[in-house]
Amino acid sequence: GGEMDRIKNPPIEEFVHSVLPEFLGIDQVRVTHGAREGMYAAMNALCRPGQTLVVDGNAHYTTILAAERCGLFIEYVPASPGPDYRVDPDGFCQAISRLREAGETPAMVCLTYPDGNYGNLVDARAVSRICDQEDLPFMLNGAYSVGRMPIKASEMGADIIVGSGHKSMASSGPIGILGASEEYASSIFRKSALKKNKEVELLGCTVRGAGMLTMMASFAHVAERTGHYDQEVENARWFSSRLGEMGIIQQGDRPHNHDLMFFKSDLLYEISMKAKKGRYFLYRDLKQRGVCGIKAGLTRQFKLSTYLLTRDELSAAADAFQEIIDSYA
Amino acid sequence: GGEMDRIKNPPIEEFVHSVLPEFLGIDQVRVTHGAREGMYAAMNALCRPGQTLVVDGNAHYTTILAAERCGLFIEYVPASPGPDYRVDPDGFCQAISRLREAGETPAMVCLTYPDGNYGNLVDARAVSRICDQEDLPFMLNGAYSVGRMPIKASEMGADIIVGSGHKSMASSGPIGILGASEEYASSIFRKSALKKNKEVELLGCTVRGAGMLTMMASFAHVAERTGHYDQEVENARWFSSRLGEMGIIQQGDRPHNHDLMFFKSDLLYEISMKAKKGRYFLYRDLKQRGVCGIKAGLTRQFKLSTYLLTRDELSAAADAFQEIIDSYA
Repeated sequence: GGEMDRIKNPPIEEFVHSVLPEFLGIDQVRVTHGAREGMYAAMNALCRPGQTLVVDGNAHYTTILAAERCGLFIEYVPASPGPDYRVDPDGFCQAISRLREAGETPAMVCLTYPDGNYGNLVDARAVSRICDQEDLPFMLNGAYSVGRMPIKASEMGADIIVGSGHKSMASSGPIGILGASEEYASSIFRKSALKKNKEVELLGCTVRGAGMLTMMASFAHVAERTGHYDQEVENARWFSSRLGEMGIIQQGDRPHNHDLMFFKSDLLYEISMKAKKGRYFLYRDLKQRGVCGIKAGLTRQFKLSTYLLTRDELSAAADAFQEIIDSYA
Repeated sequence: GGEMDRIKNPPIEEFVHSVLPEFLGIDQVRVTHGAREGMYAAMNALCRPGQTLVVDGNAHYTTILAAERCGLFIEYVPASPGPDYRVDPDGFCQAISRLREAGETPAMVCLTYPDGNYGNLVDARAVSRICDQEDLPFMLNGAYSVGRMPIKASEMGADIIVGSGHKSMASSGPIGILGASEEYASSIFRKSALKKNKEVELLGCTVRGAGMLTMMASFAHVAERTGHYDQEVENARWFSSRLGEMGIIQQGDRPHNHDLMFFKSDLLYEISMKAKKGRYFLYRDLKQRGVCGIKAGLTRQFKLSTYLLTRDELSAAADAFQEIIDSYA
């Protein structure tokens, strides 16, 4: 039978078996339908129904659904209250202890790196050490990091890593990647006992066509841009500071370490109470000034990303916020 | 949380919740990453590890992988020896009896309609009656029928049906559809206990982007073409007869009822033993005459499809075979 990841023209084999493993710093990589499908495949291969997934309190909903689909229980490592919403690596140690004391079986640890709300980056290396001590597989959900920032599973101590092609790798979705160390790859990418050369957890073959080809076509650009991540962080911090001066307060890690940021603003909320069209004023007024990216209807709290915007563009966006606030003063 | 299948602009909600259910003759439909992912979702929702899937001996390998991923055993209903490779509906009854006598638990019946090798169409209605008597869910793998021929799950008595967007619905893959009757839809499309409005088996959301939009854009054409299926069958039979006159013998159902056909030919095999480039002669010589579709290197047996080719085009293709045979005489 055919194996898509062994196709040499176009060079899918080299991309999947050489380029991506090096990029992610991990032994084995496969292309999946998305980060969620990658997480599910890893859980389905490594965990049994009735066991428990230990996960950060800021996890994306798809991590929870993947665990639920596997019949796993969830043990959260809660985030601190706002404005930090911080997840302490030691919390993973405590969560695992709680489970063991209660007679439950932790089967895997998953860290969202960063989470999709606050863009917070937890010390993955510290979580990894805990997983090593507890002999648990450590999975990193890199949907918002793989393809945006330099990230090597080997350096973070991650056994499994997933990325999102459509979120952070400039690919036509749905598509994602799933990497695993040899220790776990033999389970996750196990071959069928019944159909030659077909990997069970991938149902033989996952993404073909547009998703695969756009990921390959974008890859050189994607890999290159991760080298400028320092500038992205600097820009994010600068933008956070500009909005802060207007009373629009960034939540999560401060100083921030990612382009994805969450803001709260009582001021914009108060304006929404009296503005024409109410809470849609912010979306409308920003759009009039050529700024988009904030979900329509949100004013009191919203997230945005500064990724790949120049300082001039960010300055214009910040000016737009200031103008809007002034216009309702 | 958002539900992709409830988006009104573009009209995804109407397409998924009204157009597709009517097209398939089934209560509920969702878009999946492909037919295999649809089969897996149904098995994962309705079967438990250690139970058994009863499946026709001509099943696509993905049916077997989906069952294996669920931890199911496989009980085949064997196909008859060639040239018919026929699956008898009564074989399903016997397979279920064998399992029950052995203390095994049949959990689902899957029929490949048609199979992807011979294009054979089993009497699905008869299999459905057996499933009703045995109180087992009946799944139809319509990867090669949904979008090509008129097919209504209600008329076939199927409880679950899957189709393939990239194989038979003129869509940019990977994409498929999964339909279920209310009786089983409540399990297969069950909502998360943890994340509001998210369907567990679909991990909240499956295909977005190009796949979804191309399926919708192609749908009117796809639905229309299924109305001309009689002509497709007539063309397939005519082509089978032309090749038969040359000693290239169609296997499977005769007269045939599908555009997908499997041929055997000792004559072409004998030519391959002496032709330049050996077994690649057929691919090369057909290509020189503007005919493609047969896998390079095959001569003794190969499959092809006559779908959507005109009688003139099929006549030219048959002439090409005759010319090639004559050229080696």
